[in-house]
Amino acid sequence: MPQANAPEARPDLAQVRVQIDGIDQQIQDLIRQRAHWAQQVGKAKGKLAAAVDYYRPEREAQVLRRVVDRNDGPLNDEVLVRLFREIMSACLAQQEPLKIGFLGPEGTHSQQAVYKHFGHSIHGLPLASIEEVFQEVEAGHADFGVVPVENSTQGTIQSTLDMFLTSKLKICGEVELRVHQHLLSRAGRLEDIERVYAHPQSFAQCKAWLRQYLPKAEKIPVSSNADGAKRARNADDAAAIAGISAATVYGLKSLAGPIEDRPDNTTRFLVLGRELFPPSGNDRTSLLVFIKDQPGALYHVLAPFAKHGLSMNRIESRPGHTGLWQYAFFIDITGHAQEDAMRRALDEVDEFAQEVKVLGSYPVAIA
Amino acid sequence: MPQANAPEARPDLAQVRVQIDGIDQQIQDLIRQRAHWAQQVGKAKGKLAAAVDYYRPEREAQVLRRVVDRNDGPLNDEVLVRLFREIMSACLAQQEPLKIGFLGPEGTHSQQAVYKHFGHSIHGLPLASIEEVFQEVEAGHADFGVVPVENSTQGTIQSTLDMFLTSKLKICGEVELRVHQHLLSRAGRLEDIERVYAHPQSFAQCKAWLRQYLPKAEKIPVSSNADGAKRARNADDAAAIAGISAATVYGLKSLAGPIEDRPDNTTRFLVLGRELFPPSGNDRTSLLVFIKDQPGALYHVLAPFAKHGLSMNRIESRPGHTGLWQYAFFIDITGHAQEDAMRRALDEVDEFAQEVKVLGSYPVAIA
Repeated sequence: MPQANAPEARPDLAQVRVQIDGIDQQIQDLIRQRAHWAQQVGKAKGKLAAAVDYYRPEREAQVLRRVVDRNDGPLNDEVLVRLFREIMSACLAQQEPLKIGFLGPEGTHSQQAVYKHFGHSIHGLPLASIEEVFQEVEAGHADFGVVPVENSTQGTIQSTLDMFLTSKLKICGEVELRVHQHLLSRAGRLEDIERVYAHPQSFAQCKAWLRQYLPKAEKIPVSSNADGAKRARNADDAAAIAGISAATVYGLKSLAGPIEDRPDNTTRFLVLGRELFPPSGNDRTSLLVFIKDQPGALYHVLAPFAKHGLSMNRIESRPGHTGLWQYAFFIDITGHAQEDAMRRALDEVDEFAQEVKVLGSYPVAIA
Repeated sequence: MPQANAPEARPDLAQVRVQIDGIDQQIQDLIRQRAHWAQQVGKAKGKLAAAVDYYRPEREAQVLRRVVDRNDGPLNDEVLVRLFREIMSACLAQQEPLKIGFLGPEGTHSQQAVYKHFGHSIHGLPLASIEEVFQEVEAGHADFGVVPVENSTQGTIQSTLDMFLTSKLKICGEVELRVHQHLLSRAGRLEDIERVYAHPQSFAQCKAWLRQYLPKAEKIPVSSNADGAKRARNADDAAAIAGISAATVYGLKSLAGPIEDRPDNTTRFLVLGRELFPPSGNDRTSLLVFIKDQPGALYHVLAPFAKHGLSMNRIESRPGHTGLWQYAFFIDITGHAQEDAMRRALDEVDEFAQEVKVLGSYPVAIA
């Protein structure tokens, strides 16, 4: 029954539903139109192409940035970007969906990263190792691959970086996945907790929360969060800080979560492909630079980027393999390798480095 | 460059992108409006309610059925239903998202079923056992739970049904998840395969495919597909039929998949909640009927449904517990317990049964 029109009156449910039904009909009609236009993009020689033939990461990044720019609520950017990724994914997959290799088994963070980046209208291939992800993309069995490269508790995943020393694959995207911390315990209530186990890094991540909610609890550092969860399993007054999946593994319950102070606690993944894509307007370039062991070599390699106004986001050195090279550096720079400033900087770096490989230029991760 | 307007000419890419950009802008504006209206539904006493307070499965089912009815391509029903589930999920989660318990760890089919039914804008709680899923929903730590109840290779999951013998929870939804079969092998090519291992049921599911692509291969029945995958690991001329996740576990590759003949190879899940919801227009009712061991008892219990034109989709008997009851039957009937025909039938059944429990009336699974 409609209520009197008082300012706090609850709106008439039936009326609201009629409005929503009308909106849904329009959304559906627009999605239909969008799918038709996407077919037009995918039509080569009058035949509908496989998704890999017309997938353009730089174009997708531009579309999503526009979504974020236009957004003035009530939904947040992350949710809207997810909805548009799914719409694009569905439109792209009309003929033959993208095949994406990832570090399996199903349910890993890598699989989450695949869906976050490519949407759900893809064919996922869970693989047994990072090496196999590279191989399957190289062999063409997968169109793209997704591998973890950095995470906030373990740092850089060296085995991923090392694959680039020999692989010809290109980086054509990055994905950032938030990692959430929970307070896990077999106890039922927060008030019962007198000790908390966690890796020092996890304590640091949840400092403000612990100060507010467990100011008197003893904080006991352990070598890994899994180790902390194991210990918490044996006591009624103990808890551990860990990801929610540890709750299932160790038979604990989440008393609170997410409890990390900063929402930017993330794992970073790289998207591997066989070719480089054009600039999207906000890109990052990953370089592998081999240099000779001589005084000032690194300085000479880095100077050109500073000179051309390009900022370095990350540098990671790798020990030398005898004979081939003495040092290798993985360097991330803001910008795209096809842009003028980067081109000029790369030319100059070339003079001082033994070899410079552009591993990829790709859109900076969105939401 | 725009081409001449020949019938087979590829449309101008820039033009198409302008069209798509305009469509995206409209879709985004409509999603914004939808989210605003959803807030209106969720506003109780001028304050935005938690999702669980205004989640209505029967309404969602109606919205999705309308999406399917309206659909005339090019996207298929399943993809469109997924997009609309995500849009509804995002709109619902604006204040506090639904908390959904499921049989963990993350990455299981149960988690896939959760996302399929509730979209991704929820808070998932991976739990260690089916029993725990029931407990967490009963205790109110989870708003809903999702548990498997039947799958096409193993049949009914008795432990799930048995929970209803003592639990007060209600079934308020069902989810059907397709399960795909792959041909897994360590060999690189289909031509090398001379033997295929699989559970007899899996052979039956892939009969047409095997006849077409591996007519000469020897078919060797094994006790489980996992066992077949293990055997295939040891030979270059052998393959196994199994789900894709077995590829990672046993270090095999998929030579082909999905290879099942019928696309309706599914696992069925139940959604558990604490209350019953009104009819959606196309519902199923699950009953638990305890009957005395006397001649014709089952016949008398089933007759009223037939009489009132209600079809039975499924019946499953459970052995008796001494003293309490002699036989229990789980029965699924088309229709909703609040509808007249079902009401009358239930009244009549009551006369012959020792006890009749309505476990739930819920929308039939969509796409």
